[in-house]
Amino acid sequence: MSYLDHIKHCNNADLRAFLPLTLGASRIGWVHHELGAAVGRWPETFAISELSIALAPHADDYATCGAAVEPALRAFANQGLIMGWRDEPYPVMREWGDPPLMQIERAACPALGVRAWGVHVNGYVRRGDELYMWIAQRAADKPSYPGMLDNMVAGGQPIGIDLRANVIKEAAEEASIPVEISQHAVAVGMISYAHQGPDGLKPDQMFCYDLELPDDFTPDNTDGEVEEFELWPIAQLAETVRDTFDFKFNCNLVIIDFLIRHGVLTPDNEPDYAALCRGLRA
Amino acid sequence: MSYLDHIKHCNNADLRAFLPLTLGASRIGWVHHELGAAVGRWPETFAISELSIALAPHADDYATCGAAVEPALRAFANQGLIMGWRDEPYPVMREWGDPPLMQIERAACPALGVRAWGVHVNGYVRRGDELYMWIAQRAADKPSYPGMLDNMVAGGQPIGIDLRANVIKEAAEEASIPVEISQHAVAVGMISYAHQGPDGLKPDQMFCYDLELPDDFTPDNTDGEVEEFELWPIAQLAETVRDTFDFKFNCNLVIIDFLIRHGVLTPDNEPDYAALCRGLRA
Repeated sequence: MSYLDHIKHCNNADLRAFLPLTLGASRIGWVHHELGAAVGRWPETFAISELSIALAPHADDYATCGAAVEPALRAFANQGLIMGWRDEPYPVMREWGDPPLMQIERAACPALGVRAWGVHVNGYVRRGDELYMWIAQRAADKPSYPGMLDNMVAGGQPIGIDLRANVIKEAAEEASIPVEISQHAVAVGMISYAHQGPDGLKPDQMFCYDLELPDDFTPDNTDGEVEEFELWPIAQLAETVRDTFDFKFNCNLVIIDFLIRHGVLTPDNEPDYAALCRGLRA
Repeated sequence: MSYLDHIKHCNNADLRAFLPLTLGASRIGWVHHELGAAVGRWPETFAISELSIALAPHADDYATCGAAVEPALRAFANQGLIMGWRDEPYPVMREWGDPPLMQIERAACPALGVRAWGVHVNGYVRRGDELYMWIAQRAADKPSYPGMLDNMVAGGQPIGIDLRANVIKEAAEEASIPVEISQHAVAVGMISYAHQGPDGLKPDQMFCYDLELPDDFTPDNTDGEVEEFELWPIAQLAETVRDTFDFKFNCNLVIIDFLIRHGVLTPDNEPDYAALCRGLRA
């Protein structure tokens, strides 16, 4: 396999199997035809036509849209069509930074193909000219992607907090990183993809941060979501990403982006360099 | 104006005014309809059909393709349809890293809409937490983009040299940077665009490098192509890019990429962040 296989895997969605989900004049998501029967039982909430599904056609502002949709989503959760309800409201926006059109339960985003945003933090250490990165292994009992490898810190982006504050919060919760360290996290870009999985479609954008850690700092998980942290030499990390699917799908893109930005992968040593650069923000 | 205006300006091409240029089974360029009459006078070199133009239909390898095309290109140059002949062979490839299909004079690439590659070097200085960047002003008598602002070092990518060696060569020629310094240039990514100008179409990809310079080093131009170098605080640089078209068109993307990678522009402070991230590799 090759790095490029991760771009393909993260962009495996076949949109022909989905109907666009609209809110007013905006397309805000994609609904898989397998959800069609369930959606059809809520005609006041989902107005189905041949070419698209209009969400909450009788609601016209932030609050009424969210209220109109919630009962249907709760019902889908009870039917097992939405897994892992979290009571975490996510904003529905066409683009990051737009005023939110409505809010929606986080766990429902993939079922409706609504874009979610999140933050991923590359926790790295420099020893002379050598780079190392802290890698997390997800807990075996985590509902999503159990046991898979992960970035040191990563989290979804809920409503009501800016990204930088979310990075600091997640760094404390997931890896016991004090704010004196995490405040030095640097925003370095974004990866995006449209990934189709058993829970639906994730047309998501993840904001990436680099956090250089002191050589004597060891992350420590306290919320039970991480099995263990390991510090890997960058070459081991690059090989693992290139040759395996051991990392949670989107972490591969975050790491490939890191390898490109730090000159580990270069246009002289990586034949797919240009395709990778383009594919990270597909 | 806004940063996003540079994405639009760099991607101003209206491909409806062009015919695809093919070589064998590959599309390798785009020819503007205004060049149609000139191209039509070389039916052995350009086989024009309604939907495309086939280049060198009777040639079938690297050497014969190049030889078949050269007389027509020389004639175009004599007619003033190609300006600034340089005698610099460029590789024709579909993607960077593919085996070259043929070679072509550098100055002819835009007329045929053939993709070119190049290197751009962000020469920067750190003073505590503050970033500064060395900016070049192009000589007033330079044939292309005279007097405009530019990256410290930038150059096209000719055949027969790898990118890293080209960075070191251009750094010496354009800014008198010794190899002891330039060898520390770090490959950090790529920007791409499809820009239409008076000379044709540039569907180009530029590989970006960061080079941290010692605080006491001053670049010095010896080949007459640079009027002067200035060290700018990063905030001045960001404002100039955001508010003006003073920089040569593609340098704006290189600098926006730098501002994103170094956390000057962030998803918390720049409303167009996601669109910029995507647009840098359009």
